[in-house]
Amino acid sequence: MTAKGELTKRKILEIATSLVNRKGFGATTIQDVISATGMQKGCIYFHFPDKDALCLAILENAREDFLLFLDSALSGDTPGACLENFFRQAVEKHLAAGFIGGCIFGNTAIEFSDTDSRFAAVIERVFDDWIGMIRRTVSAAQDAGQVRTDIPAASLALHIVAAIEGGIMLSRLKKNEESMRQCLDTVRTFLQLQTADLPSPRTKGES
Amino acid sequence: MTAKGELTKRKILEIATSLVNRKGFGATTIQDVISATGMQKGCIYFHFPDKDALCLAILENAREDFLLFLDSALSGDTPGACLENFFRQAVEKHLAAGFIGGCIFGNTAIEFSDTDSRFAAVIERVFDDWIGMIRRTVSAAQDAGQVRTDIPAASLALHIVAAIEGGIMLSRLKKNEESMRQCLDTVRTFLQLQTADLPSPRTKGES
Repeated sequence: MTAKGELTKRKILEIATSLVNRKGFGATTIQDVISATGMQKGCIYFHFPDKDALCLAILENAREDFLLFLDSALSGDTPGACLENFFRQAVEKHLAAGFIGGCIFGNTAIEFSDTDSRFAAVIERVFDDWIGMIRRTVSAAQDAGQVRTDIPAASLALHIVAAIEGGIMLSRLKKNEESMRQCLDTVRTFLQLQTADLPSPRTKGES
Repeated sequence: MTAKGELTKRKILEIATSLVNRKGFGATTIQDVISATGMQKGCIYFHFPDKDALCLAILENAREDFLLFLDSALSGDTPGACLENFFRQAVEKHLAAGFIGGCIFGNTAIEFSDTDSRFAAVIERVFDDWIGMIRRTVSAAQDAGQVRTDIPAASLALHIVAAIEGGIMLSRLKKNEESMRQCLDTVRTFLQLQTADLPSPRTKGES
């Protein structure tokens, strides 16, 4: 595809993603995408042969973006600082969006879990990857004495993701950051998270 | 309305609710309701003049059922036992449904938060009522020494509801009870929940 073609495809994806975030996949039509992009029908169909192809491309694209976000948010001098950084950036990300759209994977999980196993499989993979990344960081934070060790890292990671998803849903409903922020404050207390730059076996000498 | 009319209305509501639980409000059409109930179009419209009226009736009906469920699930000899009972019954309720449908309020929150403020307001009220009921029980459990007291009851209640919603979403996606069960196990540990029949200022003598 030409560079111009790539740009067009990317523009369609971006605009379609923002429509889907607000209305869901089911309620978003190709006609909505045509209206919102101002492009010709033929141009949309040239890049995406049908709505399913567009939806899968949106999910795949959102997945790549989210993994990049996780990778950048889960950074810091110590594993505890990585978790703290992630919590803070998760709130900021949704705050910047005015709590519109929410989490595309949570939304799509709810839209497709019972109706489309192909889409559900993509989303399941995103959640497995996300929980896995948090689990590895929690485990490193446990080794570093920055997170409680009486609950397995896998359980803590699942809990963190579930509480964040529920917090996003409530903040989106109420259109304010309080629910999500409070959920994450409680998660910090729950983890007994120490973010101070403690000496740790894995990060010693890095900071 | 005649008793027969009431029965018909109730049957339409029940069947429409189960359609909406699986597919969402947006993707459920009056034609779907006609096909699933086997009733005439005129009969559906006699009871519900348009789709919005049907949707609001479904939500209002689900709200009443859910408040009855909460009232019955939040019961026990002590406030701690009430919480434990609620956690157990929440998993059982979704397990019995085969993790199909999920939570109609969570689903609808995601479907309407950004698109229909009238529906969003109904759902917000459900979550406020739910969080309020849990908060009062958590507060009583704190007074009874059955739940940690270093975090306000309001924060714990919000966290419980958020984690349950996230847990339901993940269990529904994976079609198994593990995510929801694990989330609630972690919530119990987090609360430092004591369910043993401890003497408590509010329940002493009741058991």
